Amino acid sequence: VAVTEKNIVVLVGGVGGAKLALGLQQILKPENLTIVVNTGDDFWHYGLRVCPDIDTVLYTLSGRVNKENGWGLVNESTTTLQALRDLGEETWFLLGDKDIATHMLRSEMLRRGYRLTAIVARLARGMGIGANIVPMTDAPVATMVNTDIGELEFQEYFVKHRWQPIVKSLRYQGIEDAQLSLEVKEALAKADVLLIAPSNPWLSIAPILAVVGMKEAILARDIPRVAVTPIVEGKAIKGPAAKLMNELGYEVSGESVAAFYEDLITGFVYDVRDKDINKSNGTKSIALDTIMLSDDDKARLAQQILTWIDEKELA
Amino acid sequence: VAVTEKNIVVLVGGVGGAKLALGLQQILKPENLTIVVNTGDDFWHYGLRVCPDIDTVLYTLSGRVNKENGWGLVNESTTTLQALRDLGEETWFLLGDKDIATHMLRSEMLRRGYRLTAIVARLARGMGIGANIVPMTDAPVATMVNTDIGELEFQEYFVKHRWQPIVKSLRYQGIEDAQLSLEVKEALAKADVLLIAPSNPWLSIAPILAVVGMKEAILARDIPRVAVTPIVEGKAIKGPAAKLMNELGYEVSGESVAAFYEDLITGFVYDVRDKDINKSNGTKSIALDTIMLSDDDKARLAQQILTWIDEKELA
Repeated sequence: VAVTEKNIVVLVGGVGGAKLALGLQQILKPENLTIVVNTGDDFWHYGLRVCPDIDTVLYTLSGRVNKENGWGLVNESTTTLQALRDLGEETWFLLGDKDIATHMLRSEMLRRGYRLTAIVARLARGMGIGANIVPMTDAPVATMVNTDIGELEFQEYFVKHRWQPIVKSLRYQGIEDAQLSLEVKEALAKADVLLIAPSNPWLSIAPILAVVGMKEAILARDIPRVAVTPIVEGKAIKGPAAKLMNELGYEVSGESVAAFYEDLITGFVYDVRDKDINKSNGTKSIALDTIMLSDDDKARLAQQILTWIDEKELA
Repeated sequence: VAVTEKNIVVLVGGVGGAKLALGLQQILKPENLTIVVNTGDDFWHYGLRVCPDIDTVLYTLSGRVNKENGWGLVNESTTTLQALRDLGEETWFLLGDKDIATHMLRSEMLRRGYRLTAIVARLARGMGIGANIVPMTDAPVATMVNTDIGELEFQEYFVKHRWQPIVKSLRYQGIEDAQLSLEVKEALAKADVLLIAPSNPWLSIAPILAVVGMKEAILARDIPRVAVTPIVEGKAIKGPAAKLMNELGYEVSGESVAAFYEDLITGFVYDVRDKDINKSNGTKSIALDTIMLSDDDKARLAQQILTWIDEKELA
């Protein structure tokens, strides 16, 4: 089977994960790509259910994303937000007018009893996306960030306080009731390759791995399982990954990330800029250019990763 | 006490009721005016709690209403609605971008456990309205319309089907659990005059009167209780009142409306265009120009009604 005919499951968070997903979308048939998305960032905001990571993936894969930010929609207006401000509200979370339609349709379907998985499929269809975008679970999970200024809901930490509080620990509220959906189970069961995107390991990937049965379902598969570093030259490409690692007591490096995933992965993709990486932990690894600026970069990296996996038979 | 120093409570529905409320607002101190609004039209739409009559009153009294329609906001855009359409939705109910902010703030406060009365007060404050706008009850009530094409939720009947189905009967779902709020009780207890606005008696006023204890609380007050006709020359000023009366077997006239309110009112305001009105039913009545086109018309009618009540001592 050609590498691009294989069934790929990729675990992703927000912006960084969506980039690799877009790369994979460019080189795979839609039916061969399943993107399992973190929902620990989801929250209720002004009566609407907002799923930031899912929406970043939806907007990126449909070509509607605001490329400057990496999230939100392009050509977006903020009439509703301004009206909320006129009513005396604070509105620290940016909601665009078109973006709000996504949240309204989702919230209505939740009210009617649809599972989040079905809702995301409806949204993906409405945006013309063929790949399978699946939430990590249908149950509500909330990543809670214990910081020096107290425990914060994720979006309070991330957006309202711009990830400046010092993180002491994390917990995933509701995770004990979060089961694997049939869709995630089936995708893992037929996967030929599992990828972990260059997303924040603690804030984006750990909640996915914490879903009841997720790790077991992944480890049950004797397939290549490969993570891509979100750390390049001791820095995060975007967001709080490096700062967070420091605060949690990790060395800020690709090795730390590889070690974090160690029991789960059979291969690791470092960045080519990190020349002095220590590969002594036994995981097979490769150094690639993991910085994805253009859409071509994304397709190129996706292709390089799959080709490497194919050649090395990394199961 | 001068007529404009008296405490006025007015029962209203949507557009017609809001017009009289605006007239009263122009001639009364804000603290002397309480507007009790029908909430039987309220519904969930795309995840948001929409209260059409309350919003019409809010927008009218804050000077933000789209005067051409009588409802909705002026200078409104529909970016979100268009985005919902782009996702493949039908969107038969018009939601403007600024309007959506009202629904979002309300829905969020409902989620947080606030009573609708407190929410409406918050919205009124945010729009700079001094008069007391109070929902008829804090409990959710849904006017259900039994028609020749089956039972419809109110907005389905009214907006989706443009009140074209033939009405057989009405019921107010949830009304048995709808209690008088403290705010409505207090307003009625200190009222010097009770008015019933020229709103649809069956669709707008009847749900208010059906709230548990409402009729009793009104009848307990030995004060002038005066209704204004929504029917002029056998026609409704706006909306389905005349068509509905026909379908329910009533003669379409001010007299029919007066008779509908008979056990409740001590006075009735006909329109001056109806010369041949039969005043034999014992209720004191006056003929006034009840058509309110300009804001001055509204203030004039409000003033005429209160002056008449004052002179006739209609208790």
